[in-house]
Amino acid sequence: MISANLTTIKFLQQSTSQQWLEQALAHLDTILLDHSHCERKAAGVAINLMFRYPSHAKLVRSLTAIAQEELEHFEQVNQILEQRGIPLAPLASPPYGAGLSKQIRAKEPDRLLDSLLVCGLIEARSHERLGLLGAHCPEPALAKFYRGLMASEARHYGVYWVLATTFFDRSLVAQRLEALAAIESQLLTNLYSEPRMHS
Amino acid sequence: MISANLTTIKFLQQSTSQQWLEQALAHLDTILLDHSHCERKAAGVAINLMFRYPSHAKLVRSLTAIAQEELEHFEQVNQILEQRGIPLAPLASPPYGAGLSKQIRAKEPDRLLDSLLVCGLIEARSHERLGLLGAHCPEPALAKFYRGLMASEARHYGVYWVLATTFFDRSLVAQRLEALAAIESQLLTNLYSEPRMHS
Ligand SMILES: [Fe+2]
Ligand SMILES: [Fe+2]
Ligand SMILES: [Fe+2]
Ligand SMILES: [Fe+2]
Repeated sequence: MISANLTTIKFLQQSTSQQWLEQALAHLDTILLDHSHCERKAAGVAINLMFRYPSHAKLVRSLTAIAQEELEHFEQVNQILEQRGIPLAPLASPPYGAGLSKQIRAKEPDRLLDSLLVCGLIEARSHERLGLLGAHCPEPALAKFYRGLMASEARHYGVYWVLATTFFDRSLVAQRLEALAAIESQLLTNLYSEPRMHS
Repeated sequence: MISANLTTIKFLQQSTSQQWLEQALAHLDTILLDHSHCERKAAGVAINLMFRYPSHAKLVRSLTAIAQEELEHFEQVNQILEQRGIPLAPLASPPYGAGLSKQIRAKEPDRLLDSLLVCGLIEARSHERLGLLGAHCPEPALAKFYRGLMASEARHYGVYWVLATTFFDRSLVAQRLEALAAIESQLLTNLYSEPRMHS
C-alpha cells in the first residue's frame, strides 16, 4: 500500500483517499486523458463566467488570466498524450462535476457566489491531487510535470476566493464555502468505477 | 470623405463600405468596447469547437493556439478601454453573427465544415476592418494597435481554411465557402444603426 502522506488543503474538508491514489497510479494513461478534458473544461468555465458577467472588470481580468493558464496546461497535457501515443478521445465524466453544478443556485447574486466557490473547490481538489500524483507517480518526468502544475492550481483557487470576497461579505462567503465543501467531500466518498482526476 | 483604399481580402466577396469606416472612426470608443466582446467571443467559439470535436488532434491543437491569441487580444483591448476610462459593459450584437450562425447546417459532417468556414469568414472580415482602422484611425497609438492585430487575424483565417481542407475535399470547401461568403457580404449591405466591428 502506498503511503499517500495526505496534506491538508485549505477549502477541502476531506483528504483524498488512498484508494483514489492507487487507482490513479494504476491507470496513468486514463488519468492523463481525463486531465486533458479537465484543463479544457477549466478554460471553458472561466470564459463562460466572463460571458455571464461582462461588466465586472476585476472578474474579467482575473478569469482571462486563468483561462490562458488552463489553455497552456491543456496544451502541455496534450503534448504528453501525444508523446505516449494516447489518442485524444471523449471520456465519460464522473458524477463529481454535475453534482457540484447542481448546487449552484439559479438566482443572482447567489449564482455568482456559488459559481465562484464551486470553481474554487474544484481547483483546490485539483491542487491536492496533482500534489499526490507529483509525490507518488513512479515516472520521474511525469511526477515533475504534476508538481509543476500544482502552484498554478493553488493560485487559481486563491483567485476564486478573492473574487468571491470582492463581491460578497466575507462571513457569507465563508459560510457558503463550508456548505459546498461538505458536499464536495461527500461526492468523493464513493470512488467512481473508472479512474478520473475528480472521482 | 475618407479614402478607404479598400484592399481585397481572400475569402471576402465584397469590400467594407466607406460608410462603415466613417461610422467607426466617429465612434471609436464604442468600436473598442465591441471589439473587446468580439475577442472574447472568438476565444469562446474556438473552445466550443474543441469541446465538440475532442478527438480531432489537429483541430484541437490549432484551436488551442487561436483561443490563446484571442484571449491575449481580449486583454489588450481591455487595457485600452481601461486607459480611456471606458467601463466594460454589455453591448447589443448586430445581426451579423446570428445571420452567419444560421447558415451552419445541423447535420455532421456539414456542421463541422460550415463552422470552420463561418469562423474563417469572420476572421477574414476582422482582418480587413482592423486594416482599415489601422490605416485611417487618427490616433497614432490606436492605429498602431490595430495594425498589430491584423497579422494574427490573417493567420487565423488561414488556420480555419487549412482545417477545413484537412477534413474535407478541397473543391467541396471552395464551393461551400463561395456560398457562405456571398451571404456574409449580403449581411453587411445594410449598415447597422449602431457602430460595431461587424455591421
Ligand atoms: Fe489547470
Ligand atoms: Fe486551474
Ligand atoms: Fe483576435
Ligand atoms: Fe482571430
